[in-house]
Amino acid sequence: MSSEVPEEVRRIFESASFGADLGIRLESVGPGACTSVLSLETRHLQQDGYVHAGVQATVADHTAGGAAASLLRRGQYVLSTGIEIHLLRAAKGERLICRARVLKAGKQITVVESEVFCVASGKERLVSKATITLAVLLQREE
Amino acid sequence: MSSEVPEEVRRIFESASFGADLGIRLESVGPGACTSVLSLETRHLQQDGYVHAGVQATVADHTAGGAAASLLRRGQYVLSTGIEIHLLRAAKGERLICRARVLKAGKQITVVESEVFCVASGKERLVSKATITLAVLLQREE
Amino acid sequence: MSSEVPEEVRRIFESASFGADLGIRLESVGPGACTSVLSLETRHLQQDGYVHAGVQATVADHTAGGAAASLLRRGQYVLSTGIEIHLLRAAKGERLICRARVLKAGKQITVVESEVFCVASGKERLVSKATITLAVLLQREE
Amino acid sequence: MSSEVPEEVRRIFESASFGADLGIRLESVGPGACTSVLSLETRHLQQDGYVHAGVQATVADHTAGGAAASLLRRGQYVLSTGIEIHLLRAAKGERLICRARVLKAGKQITVVESEVFCVASGKERLVSKATITLAVLLQREE
Repeated sequence: MSSEVPEEVRRIFESASFGADLGIRLESVGPGACTSVLSLETRHLQQDGYVHAGVQATVADHTAGGAAASLLRRGQYVLSTGIEIHLLRAAKGERLICRARVLKAGKQITVVESEVFCVASGKERLVSKATITLAVLLQREE
Repeated sequence: MSSEVPEEVRRIFESASFGADLGIRLESVGPGACTSVLSLETRHLQQDGYVHAGVQATVADHTAGGAAASLLRRGQYVLSTGIEIHLLRAAKGERLICRARVLKAGKQITVVESEVFCVASGKERLVSKATITLAVLLQREE
Repeated sequence: MSSEVPEEVRRIFESASFGADLGIRLESVGPGACTSVLSLETRHLQQDGYVHAGVQATVADHTAGGAAASLLRRGQYVLSTGIEIHLLRAAKGERLICRARVLKAGKQITVVESEVFCVASGKERLVSKATITLAVLLQREE
Repeated sequence: MSSEVPEEVRRIFESASFGADLGIRLESVGPGACTSVLSLETRHLQQDGYVHAGVQATVADHTAGGAAASLLRRGQYVLSTGIEIHLLRAAKGERLICRARVLKAGKQITVVESEVFCVASGKERLVSKATITLAVLLQREE
């Protein structure tokens, strides 16, 4: 991961056990934007062979966290307070790509949009779209 | 799992790889209601040691699927089309309990509410509340 | 309106032009709970004679504001930051009753649930269910 | 209103009492897209002089109905089943402009995004963003 990656974004992608356990990888990050990739495996599916809604929600939330964290000041961190995701079509393929961008960065609340694409046979298709709300908090001094 | 468990509910909890991979277990099911349990492990957490929002969304969605499936007729199945979850407080503890109940069972759309509780030191606390929308579909004949 | 009604709740139901314009009346208020009534008129309907989704969203939001305001300390006020409403069935009848209750009252964010019932021929039926998120703010000194 | 306007879109903007009562006017419509305008009056405000969240939700929903209706086949109509709106900043100004576009047009469900802008002193600003879910239904023969 490049040294250009803001510390809080790095922390989300390196220290969040569940993101790592799932296999979510940071692809790129810019001010208010973040892209991640997840190579799909059998364990990510639901009972009919489609990508589980929970996997899509997790990827959308995790990448939104990265986008929100890219705008933080030193000592701040984010915590998700709401996820809304619309699963537009059944997802099946080799990998998910999630692109998140900040819609509104507030002092206390940041709102982020995440689009999840599924790549099947090299073709990318929007499978879900989410809005994530995050509280902006101050780290306690130690 | 008891033979009383409706076939589609059983299929969700036995054949959905992601639910099994996470460790979600069916606790009980009745007409329009479903309860599940997840023993929390380090891999379920985010970067600050709280239960990842994606884990909570997955448990809420998965259990909602069970509640919706409990009301299906033979040959029908459900597919999540939307998840909205409000994370009310940072969750830390030994396990999650999710209780889902159908709010409206329609011919094409079922709406389910899921409440996620976190048990810490034996005390149960509501940590998130979700509404899941599911499409009711017909299995293709083979 | 009784003098028992907290000042901020009174202000929402007396000074919010749009609530008054629509015809929303405060029915009762308690700590973290609020009930309102709207007598339905032709102007509240959409093109097929059902209560417009926007009317239901407004009643849900307005009453949630009342419930949230019932828990405020002096000098605080609330501002809606999000509305999610599920319209469970087409609504037709004489009046709407909305019951809102606070799910989580936080220092910065309050989350409220609103249930909207439609009364037709004396029978009350749940027609929509909403979750409203409100920011808790401090009035500027003058 | 131009004769080019699809019949169902025309019906939404001409026969929906609540849209007319509020003052929502159709600005333009294309395949899967719709724009509307609302001149703000005192009656559209809440207790602190901002545009009421319910007004924004109504405009978002109504315009989404127009966008969804622009893609309907003869004999079909739409009915909102869900509204999610994020109010990004307090809105104050002369008028609202709402731009809606279809995200997914399905056989049974259409998902539409609506962006609401507030124009103040000639400057347009995004004040809220919504996702509307609509059921696609068949008119009963008479």
